[in-house]
Amino acid sequence: MHEYRTHTCGALRAADAGSTARLSGWVNVKRDHGGLLFIDLRDHFGITQCVIPNGSAVFDLAEATRVESVITVTGTVVARDAATVNPRLPTGEIELRVEDFVLQSAADVLPIQVAGDAQFPEDLRLRYRFLDLRREKLHRNIMLRANVVTWLRREMTARGFTEFTTPILTASSPEGARDFLVPSRLHPGQFYALPQAPQQFKQLLMVAGFDRYFQIAPCFRDEASRADRAPGEFYQLDFEMSFVDQEEVFATIEPVLGGLFKEFSGGKTVSDWPFPRIAYDDALLTYGSDKPDLRNPLKIADVTDAFRDSGFGLFAKIVAGGGVVRAIPAPGAGGNPRSFFDKLNDWARTEGAGGLGYIIFEADGAKGPIAKNLEPARAEAIRTAVGAQPGDAVFFAAGPRDTAAKFAGSVRTKLGNDLGLISNDSFKFCWIVDFPMFEMDEDTKQIAFSHNPFSMPQGGLEALNTRDPLTIKAFQYDIVVNGVELCSGAIRNHKPEIMLRAFEIAGYGPEIVEAQFGGMLNAFRYGAPPHGGAAPGIDRMVMLLADEPNLREVITFPLNQQGQDLMMGAPAPVDATRLRELSLALAPRKPN
Amino acid sequence: MHEYRTHTCGALRAADAGSTARLSGWVNVKRDHGGLLFIDLRDHFGITQCVIPNGSAVFDLAEATRVESVITVTGTVVARDAATVNPRLPTGEIELRVEDFVLQSAADVLPIQVAGDAQFPEDLRLRYRFLDLRREKLHRNIMLRANVVTWLRREMTARGFTEFTTPILTASSPEGARDFLVPSRLHPGQFYALPQAPQQFKQLLMVAGFDRYFQIAPCFRDEASRADRAPGEFYQLDFEMSFVDQEEVFATIEPVLGGLFKEFSGGKTVSDWPFPRIAYDDALLTYGSDKPDLRNPLKIADVTDAFRDSGFGLFAKIVAGGGVVRAIPAPGAGGNPRSFFDKLNDWARTEGAGGLGYIIFEADGAKGPIAKNLEPARAEAIRTAVGAQPGDAVFFAAGPRDTAAKFAGSVRTKLGNDLGLISNDSFKFCWIVDFPMFEMDEDTKQIAFSHNPFSMPQGGLEALNTRDPLTIKAFQYDIVVNGVELCSGAIRNHKPEIMLRAFEIAGYGPEIVEAQFGGMLNAFRYGAPPHGGAAPGIDRMVMLLADEPNLREVITFPLNQQGQDLMMGAPAPVDATRLRELSLALAPRKPN
Repeated sequence: MHEYRTHTCGALRAADAGSTARLSGWVNVKRDHGGLLFIDLRDHFGITQCVIPNGSAVFDLAEATRVESVITVTGTVVARDAATVNPRLPTGEIELRVEDFVLQSAADVLPIQVAGDAQFPEDLRLRYRFLDLRREKLHRNIMLRANVVTWLRREMTARGFTEFTTPILTASSPEGARDFLVPSRLHPGQFYALPQAPQQFKQLLMVAGFDRYFQIAPCFRDEASRADRAPGEFYQLDFEMSFVDQEEVFATIEPVLGGLFKEFSGGKTVSDWPFPRIAYDDALLTYGSDKPDLRNPLKIADVTDAFRDSGFGLFAKIVAGGGVVRAIPAPGAGGNPRSFFDKLNDWARTEGAGGLGYIIFEADGAKGPIAKNLEPARAEAIRTAVGAQPGDAVFFAAGPRDTAAKFAGSVRTKLGNDLGLISNDSFKFCWIVDFPMFEMDEDTKQIAFSHNPFSMPQGGLEALNTRDPLTIKAFQYDIVVNGVELCSGAIRNHKPEIMLRAFEIAGYGPEIVEAQFGGMLNAFRYGAPPHGGAAPGIDRMVMLLADEPNLREVITFPLNQQGQDLMMGAPAPVDATRLRELSLALAPRKPN
Repeated sequence: MHEYRTHTCGALRAADAGSTARLSGWVNVKRDHGGLLFIDLRDHFGITQCVIPNGSAVFDLAEATRVESVITVTGTVVARDAATVNPRLPTGEIELRVEDFVLQSAADVLPIQVAGDAQFPEDLRLRYRFLDLRREKLHRNIMLRANVVTWLRREMTARGFTEFTTPILTASSPEGARDFLVPSRLHPGQFYALPQAPQQFKQLLMVAGFDRYFQIAPCFRDEASRADRAPGEFYQLDFEMSFVDQEEVFATIEPVLGGLFKEFSGGKTVSDWPFPRIAYDDALLTYGSDKPDLRNPLKIADVTDAFRDSGFGLFAKIVAGGGVVRAIPAPGAGGNPRSFFDKLNDWARTEGAGGLGYIIFEADGAKGPIAKNLEPARAEAIRTAVGAQPGDAVFFAAGPRDTAAKFAGSVRTKLGNDLGLISNDSFKFCWIVDFPMFEMDEDTKQIAFSHNPFSMPQGGLEALNTRDPLTIKAFQYDIVVNGVELCSGAIRNHKPEIMLRAFEIAGYGPEIVEAQFGGMLNAFRYGAPPHGGAAPGIDRMVMLLADEPNLREVITFPLNQQGQDLMMGAPAPVDATRLRELSLALAPRKPN
């Protein structure tokens, strides 16, 4: 017989009754029922009830064994009688009558409980992560994560992508966040950087002719912790394709991401593909955001013209000054008491707005403070613009275009939540496309890159040479699900002459571009294919699928929010000799 | 029609003749044959011959396009006539008559050629790695590596292993090599370390109850470069299993490693499993090495007794002094001229031996300088021990046990090579088992750990408490193929009391063990399963399969031997502001 187990703790069934079995696992729960000792024995695969009768030679040893000790038990599989069958356990039809009991590893008194749903402080959980990981929900989350990654790898491979690992000890990259640095011992005073993303390497793989690349890529940013980004390291499904346009990138990855969510959503509905493509400008107008949550059915309308030269002087003045007015419908909200509208007004002030004006549409016309000063034809134009029905309210966001658009988006989200319009039973995907290539930097009044300077401008060199830069769009896109941006991506600019011209428009001369991005530029001078890709975040996708608000619930061994590993004790001081080897000295910062 | 391609450059066949096709790729070779321009167009998938007749509107553009430029060509697929079919190309039955030609990306004059087999200096190859990677052999090696990793992942998953990523920003570990350090910005004066191996994390995953773990794990050691270990980072197939004994680890991983070699060996024969298990002591005796190359058929024999008190005084004296004599057979070597033996004698002196004695067995008895002084019965005992036939020679290594054993191993390898006994047409695996737990440190005359202090000693606590430590074996093993050690592995010591006792024997008190290894020790106090595993090196396996002597030929973007990335420019100096953020200052070492 196997020294440790003939079956896992999830394996035995009624058909096994009468046979001898050996199980190993952790003592999940121990109950003494009048002379019978019950042990729920747990391993990765399940739980099996083990029974030790009083008088058994191993009773005392078993009784003295603490929960979470590791034991090996051998005995006879016995069918439970109907009254004691546990339908919640796959092994619930049987129990193991223990004849032999080996204590493999005794557990001390536990700092955190494994069985049950008790809550413990996060620092304690992280310090004893090896116990926390035994708990049902976290164990399930980590397995979900592993299964997600395995699924992604299989699907990417099936689509002709090949996984290449790219260097972790590499050069500082122009992604823009702060690098982690690694001092070189062999080259005193010099440092490697950990990659913020394998952006340059994946583009070089395309230049090297590898057609379709992907990687479950570790990325590193020395930035403040956020709920949806781990301090230190995070993972993305990094991919890149040669000889493709934007639509081919979309068509290739939609079945992967959509398929992933269908596979692991636990019954939630998932957008069919192709996913909606929403132009950046349209997203800002209609959803007040470039990360719209399409579960929220509300759509914003522009009603600037309805207020131009109108009797409602506050908005008329904003419009006369070049501002806009956006209308956000609130279906069925018209019947709410005055306090409902007052509370929203108060909320708007906390958001930095002057207040939150509204109109209530009733069967006999528009009501409320704004309606009082607005000509009925204008109110009717607003009603039509948002498709309001009798009993609906409509709220307004007025101001400079970008400010009004974003505030309208906040109102839309607030109303969606307050009116219970956003149900948590679906994943709704969309692409945001046609991002502007350039924008006006309001501080410097200079033209600057809006997003990624390495994206291909729509219209290519001709557009750069002939059009108002602020009207040029880029082949750059985001994929968004339920209001969460999974990633940005782009068709890359693979032509040195277009890259140099784009940088010139943004105020960078060729000498700066060569100095900072010479590596890529140089590679593009030896035959570069058109290429594009993206890099959806693994942590964010697993958070969404596990329905967890905190990514430390979906990472096996996370750092805490201060970037510390409380279990292993990192970071930590090092010996002076190590610093000398690295030609470094500590230089404590002076207090500011 | 697709903007870039209807087919890849490896797709078109005779059956496509007559259809219109569009291809994109790199200009591999360009030939002007009297008014016809031939372009071999290359992509990841293959090569297709494209033809542009003189007089074509695109002839001049095509003629002016340098090799390695990226082009898109559209035209008619034409069957080649029988005389011009190229049987070496899958697309060799057709060519593309080009009607449209788009230059996607012009190549400058190349620093290294892509087509052909010309050799270039390694620094130039690394600086232009994106070109080097286009070359046939390197491209194939990198794809082999990727396919090996994908295959390993699939097989491990199929065997119930789950892949978990473990932290890269972590604590300094006790593996013993030098860590790479990463200064913490948030915790001045403190450092993360990059993992030398995920050893502690994988054991913690077992303690956390995850049963079977694996990872294609990036590992980092700040050590000098070796031919079979990359400077900086390398990858291993890290795995660990709970509730197993040594034989179960072997039985689980043999079909993975053996299967991998069978799948990717390119026709070489591969050991069937179970692989031979060779005890460490036997390996040293029979092969003179704990990394025996079993392709070499020679087996060493101990012939100490044959020389004890014998007429050959040199060896008799060594034996009398406690030394040993090992015999290495050289089949058929007896007929060689004296110079053969003299050269071997010279070689032995360069290896630090006093010389290389031998006996030649002929049909009428033993010959040579040693035989002259050796009684015939003793010579016959030697002949029997190594199974020598008439015409064979036997060489001798004499001295202290370890020295003689290792020198005998060198002689065995030398003879195997010189006599042409090692053919490069097979992969022969074996396990080396029963490594000693402890050894005598010859410098300090103290008992020290032989290998890994965290392996389980055979016999457990009782053995530690009752036996001579130098006789205790560990459940520790190596897997070796063709004389290359793929990895060490072990059944781990999961019992704190056994660990503390083992360290005590090696001279470390509990306070030192708690201070240095408290994390693991602490985890084992809350219920740890028996567990074991190993971690075969990916780079080494791919080197063997690709038959490459240098691992930079099987790594996509390797550092050079000085630990530099010549393409990306790493390591590099950083701004003073970055150092201040990290509370560090440069402190150049004084010259020694």
